Amino acid sequence: MAHPSVSIVMGSDSDLPVIEGAFEVLKKFGVEYEVHVISAHRSPDRALEFAKSARKKGVKAIIACAGSAAHLAGVIASHTTVPVIGIPIPSSDLKGLDSLLSTVQMPAGVPVATMGVGKAGATNGAILALQMLALSDNDIREKLDSYKRELAKKVEEADRKLKEKIG
Amino acid sequence: MAHPSVSIVMGSDSDLPVIEGAFEVLKKFGVEYEVHVISAHRSPDRALEFAKSARKKGVKAIIACAGSAAHLAGVIASHTTVPVIGIPIPSSDLKGLDSLLSTVQMPAGVPVATMGVGKAGATNGAILALQMLALSDNDIREKLDSYKRELAKKVEEADRKLKEKIG
Amino acid sequence: MAHPSVSIVMGSDSDLPVIEGAFEVLKKFGVEYEVHVISAHRSPDRALEFAKSARKKGVKAIIACAGSAAHLAGVIASHTTVPVIGIPIPSSDLKGLDSLLSTVQMPAGVPVATMGVGKAGATNGAILALQMLALSDNDIREKLDSYKRELAKKVEEADRKLKEKIG
Amino acid sequence: MAHPSVSIVMGSDSDLPVIEGAFEVLKKFGVEYEVHVISAHRSPDRALEFAKSARKKGVKAIIACAGSAAHLAGVIASHTTVPVIGIPIPSSDLKGLDSLLSTVQMPAGVPVATMGVGKAGATNGAILALQMLALSDNDIREKLDSYKRELAKKVEEADRKLKEKIG
Amino acid sequence: MAHPSVSIVMGSDSDLPVIEGAFEVLKKFGVEYEVHVISAHRSPDRALEFAKSARKKGVKAIIACAGSAAHLAGVIASHTTVPVIGIPIPSSDLKGLDSLLSTVQMPAGVPVATMGVGKAGATNGAILALQMLALSDNDIREKLDSYKRELAKKVEEADRKLKEKIG
Amino acid sequence: MAHPSVSIVMGSDSDLPVIEGAFEVLKKFGVEYEVHVISAHRSPDRALEFAKSARKKGVKAIIACAGSAAHLAGVIASHTTVPVIGIPIPSSDLKGLDSLLSTVQMPAGVPVATMGVGKAGATNGAILALQMLALSDNDIREKLDSYKRELAKKVEEADRKLKEKIG
Amino acid sequence: MAHPSVSIVMGSDSDLPVIEGAFEVLKKFGVEYEVHVISAHRSPDRALEFAKSARKKGVKAIIACAGSAAHLAGVIASHTTVPVIGIPIPSSDLKGLDSLLSTVQMPAGVPVATMGVGKAGATNGAILALQMLALSDNDIREKLDSYKRELAKKVEEADRKLKEKIG
Amino acid sequence: MAHPSVSIVMGSDSDLPVIEGAFEVLKKFGVEYEVHVISAHRSPDRALEFAKSARKKGVKAIIACAGSAAHLAGVIASHTTVPVIGIPIPSSDLKGLDSLLSTVQMPAGVPVATMGVGKAGATNGAILALQMLALSDNDIREKLDSYKRELAKKVEEADRKLKEKIG
Repeated sequence: MAHPSVSIVMGSDSDLPVIEGAFEVLKKFGVEYEVHVISAHRSPDRALEFAKSARKKGVKAIIACAGSAAHLAGVIASHTTVPVIGIPIPSSDLKGLDSLLSTVQMPAGVPVATMGVGKAGATNGAILALQMLALSDNDIREKLDSYKRELAKKVEEADRKLKEKIG
Repeated sequence: MAHPSVSIVMGSDSDLPVIEGAFEVLKKFGVEYEVHVISAHRSPDRALEFAKSARKKGVKAIIACAGSAAHLAGVIASHTTVPVIGIPIPSSDLKGLDSLLSTVQMPAGVPVATMGVGKAGATNGAILALQMLALSDNDIREKLDSYKRELAKKVEEADRKLKEKIG
Repeated sequence: MAHPSVSIVMGSDSDLPVIEGAFEVLKKFGVEYEVHVISAHRSPDRALEFAKSARKKGVKAIIACAGSAAHLAGVIASHTTVPVIGIPIPSSDLKGLDSLLSTVQMPAGVPVATMGVGKAGATNGAILALQMLALSDNDIREKLDSYKRELAKKVEEADRKLKEKIG
Repeated sequence: MAHPSVSIVMGSDSDLPVIEGAFEVLKKFGVEYEVHVISAHRSPDRALEFAKSARKKGVKAIIACAGSAAHLAGVIASHTTVPVIGIPIPSSDLKGLDSLLSTVQMPAGVPVATMGVGKAGATNGAILALQMLALSDNDIREKLDSYKRELAKKVEEADRKLKEKIG
Repeated sequence: MAHPSVSIVMGSDSDLPVIEGAFEVLKKFGVEYEVHVISAHRSPDRALEFAKSARKKGVKAIIACAGSAAHLAGVIASHTTVPVIGIPIPSSDLKGLDSLLSTVQMPAGVPVATMGVGKAGATNGAILALQMLALSDNDIREKLDSYKRELAKKVEEADRKLKEKIG
Repeated sequence: MAHPSVSIVMGSDSDLPVIEGAFEVLKKFGVEYEVHVISAHRSPDRALEFAKSARKKGVKAIIACAGSAAHLAGVIASHTTVPVIGIPIPSSDLKGLDSLLSTVQMPAGVPVATMGVGKAGATNGAILALQMLALSDNDIREKLDSYKRELAKKVEEADRKLKEKIG
Repeated sequence: MAHPSVSIVMGSDSDLPVIEGAFEVLKKFGVEYEVHVISAHRSPDRALEFAKSARKKGVKAIIACAGSAAHLAGVIASHTTVPVIGIPIPSSDLKGLDSLLSTVQMPAGVPVATMGVGKAGATNGAILALQMLALSDNDIREKLDSYKRELAKKVEEADRKLKEKIG
Repeated sequence: MAHPSVSIVMGSDSDLPVIEGAFEVLKKFGVEYEVHVISAHRSPDRALEFAKSARKKGVKAIIACAGSAAHLAGVIASHTTVPVIGIPIPSSDLKGLDSLLSTVQMPAGVPVATMGVGKAGATNGAILALQMLALSDNDIREKLDSYKRELAKKVEEADRKLKEKIG
């Protein structure tokens, strides 16, 4: 059986409630994914091992979630050319500005595709991964188009309900 | 002849000096790209037309560069499922914090793969685009691996020179 | 029957509690308004359609409310010359700094009349719309003058109550 | 002869280079304007007198430009129901973040239509004023439509030139 | 009977819980004070009247508390040479950064003696007022010295208790 | 001969160009002042000695200027009940936001009367000191009133010149 | 009996819940420590006395915790050459950005080894102190190595549990 | 011959002008140091190798300098228990706020002793390293004491010169 195309790595298991939206999106699209808890700072050897082996195992997109001095996405990106998507997890005091800047401000040569801070960012990380897979997978591409139409429909429905509500 | 795989869109021609590094990377990799000046706010119909036709023309990655209330990447992403990479251009007064937040903080459902502010971000936008193409192009993948080795070599060379210099 | 003079557009129905103050002000002044849920990113075609048809329908002021990468006001302003008033909705992590900068930092040529973040901003959006209508409507102008006097009276009453309370 | 419809007030004559773009826009549209140097803090009585007499003199939009603890727009708005447009002037150390927050974060009841920090904001202040006048002036409305088309044309021209330049 | 030496002005009665510490300090020192609710923006004429009459009534220090676009202290300071002490009240979304910058960044010529954001700032506003009065009042000066010694004693007591607690 | 009433302390002689405006104001008012270079961190014993002896020597206001982790004003205020006015000096990288927050955010019990960042703040520090002296010195009080009128006149003159210039 | 090698000083006993993690780490390593409540601003003489006597008493690392205008670490460091580790305590309104900048931005010559804001920072302060002691204590060094391995194991365990949980 | 006790690692040779002050301090104290250019992202294997071998080679303090998403200090600290001192290098657009937050906000268990942004921080990094060495080296300890006295003398000299200059 093939290795999942998408790997989700989180710096701490406490990040789970923030990133579950990413799991839901991938399930909805029927795309296999694996999930790991790996810390850039507390289990650095596993981060390294994970990053160095990702390409060979067939991983096509890595979603890395971390907060505060959020080095996880950058550390993984330094060891692989598989696209790395970074999700800044909100930090308790500085509210994720630290996580965002630590994730996005990478030096020339080593990109991290950074999403917004928190839950919306996590959901979007999964969608970006799907957009990458869709470059060579028509089925996913069509599902993305249909997901986009659904988004619009949901907004229209919210519009209709609001109008009913406020008369 | 095939349409270029990568489209670079900039919100203003004054962004050119910031993003030329992206052109150099793509040239070095021998990947065709097209460049447009399109403003989300001043030429919105062209932005729309561009975004809606990108998939059909065969564009596989869009790099959108804009500053201040940097809506360009988000506006394009709202109309296509082709991956959109956002480059925040430094603004004259707020130094790109506005550009970064306007680009990265997208709502759930519509991701923009955001790079760092300014020149390093622009270079990285091109590399991320190449990483996406490499998912189905072994040649680019190998070039990315070799580019990564080159990066390391350049640092080692800088290390050697510094040691000579400071004795 | 004439189309309402004021259109309120919100990026998400979850913004409702923040912007209800705007409805109250307009009701108090007896000015007709319509409300829509339209997302710049999730229902972009409707945003476009709304913006392009506003002038013809007789809309004289558009109040657009959005959070995070708050593009809604700017996207609408790019397609119409009807005045667009932007209300930055507080975002869950960055507390509306992202919403504010995304709304206000528009490029030369396409203004968004930006209000403060959150509830006070929403109320003020309605008042600014009324101030615009008052330019050619003496009745509204007089009501604005009387509203201004009421504001002062309420502060004076609060002053009196406080003095009673703290002796 | 009628009093100009638009009043531009700047907190200091040193703000002139930032706001000249507003003058150019108004001249281009053939709309009369007056310009004052009035400081909310250093010449507060004149600020008061100006604000209190604006409506009677026939002023339809006030553009107030100030930096640092930028109270000018708010102080004027506290004394008139004529729409007040605030232009945050960049400050030497904090780069206009102070000017922006001081201008935009007005309490419920007293709006200031805030533009972006600096030159783009000043130009946009003039355009917003014109959009307000256009509510009862078809000539200005048509000029605004044509100005909008021009903006798009200029971007298209920049696009063409760039394509020539980079081949 | 003499007019109180210290005037406390708050922009809204909702600021009361933040500034009560100032009342306690003044009571403890036996210094008379008056309290007003006056809004720079909603009751500007009263703000003006208050500021212009303060000197004559014998006010020696004015403590002005306001949040968001916190213009109150600056507006008062523009109309009097009595020392004005500004207390930035925390705002609901931007957490008082807006209040602080709006209060402190005054133009040359019109100082506002700015305290920290929130409760500690309010307490300190009262103490600074007392330090000013103490310049010509030996009794207050001695009480300030004794208050300072008390502060140290309280810390020493907290130190002792902590040591008991954690063994 | 009496000791000067105003002491200006700067954390580094490199702060001189920022604070010279304070000297000019005091000279213009004919008020004696002394100037010291004392660092809270590099010459802490002198800071202590200075603070502890200020009251006895007859100092009535201390103006303390420092940048970055600007502890000077707070350290002095911890050892004296003479009013301490803090001037945040702009720092080379963080532009004085660090200096401002380090100066203003004092704990309850130990106020620092904080001025704006940089030159305007330094000038205002001197004026606040004069306002304090004026509480018991009619001559200074009258000069302050006349200084205030002068400020207004200068703005009016700038207004007149601007009107001549731009026709 | 020898004096403890590590001194923990907190600016207020209300900081206790934030810094208890530091106590736990030191206990776990069997390293003696002492704890003091000393305020740089409210009990400055004790701060001075503490700092000046630390070296002689055999203190090898000082952990200083403070919030807002957090001068404690810097004030201590100005009086001793024992390494001082600063823990920025989150402030109620500005969320510790003030505490961080006040602690870290020290002038050349007087370092404070600054940790992150809040609980993680406090724990890390203890570990850094241990790393310093380990320079001449093989036992602590070995315990640090084993602590590091434990960190990795805990992450691996969290990884295993997560995988079980989400199947 | 013994390996140097202090290792300075910089993420890019362009950081040299910022950190030369660290070299000067170490030279002045006669302490051997080595300098490397190693990038956490561009030469990650060398970063790893460096960190893992530091303890064995006898390195007692590591000074790591990096800008933007400044992961270097954290990455090294994840692989060694030798104390790691982080110097945030100012970034071109965000002025080092990104560098500071990326360096300092480390997760519990893996401290980085963070210095201020830029040149003062670099100098202080060297002094902190010396303070650590001084824990078991009386000679360095005495030099540190004398360095501290020198700092105070230089301030006193600046004080004297200023007084001569301004009369």
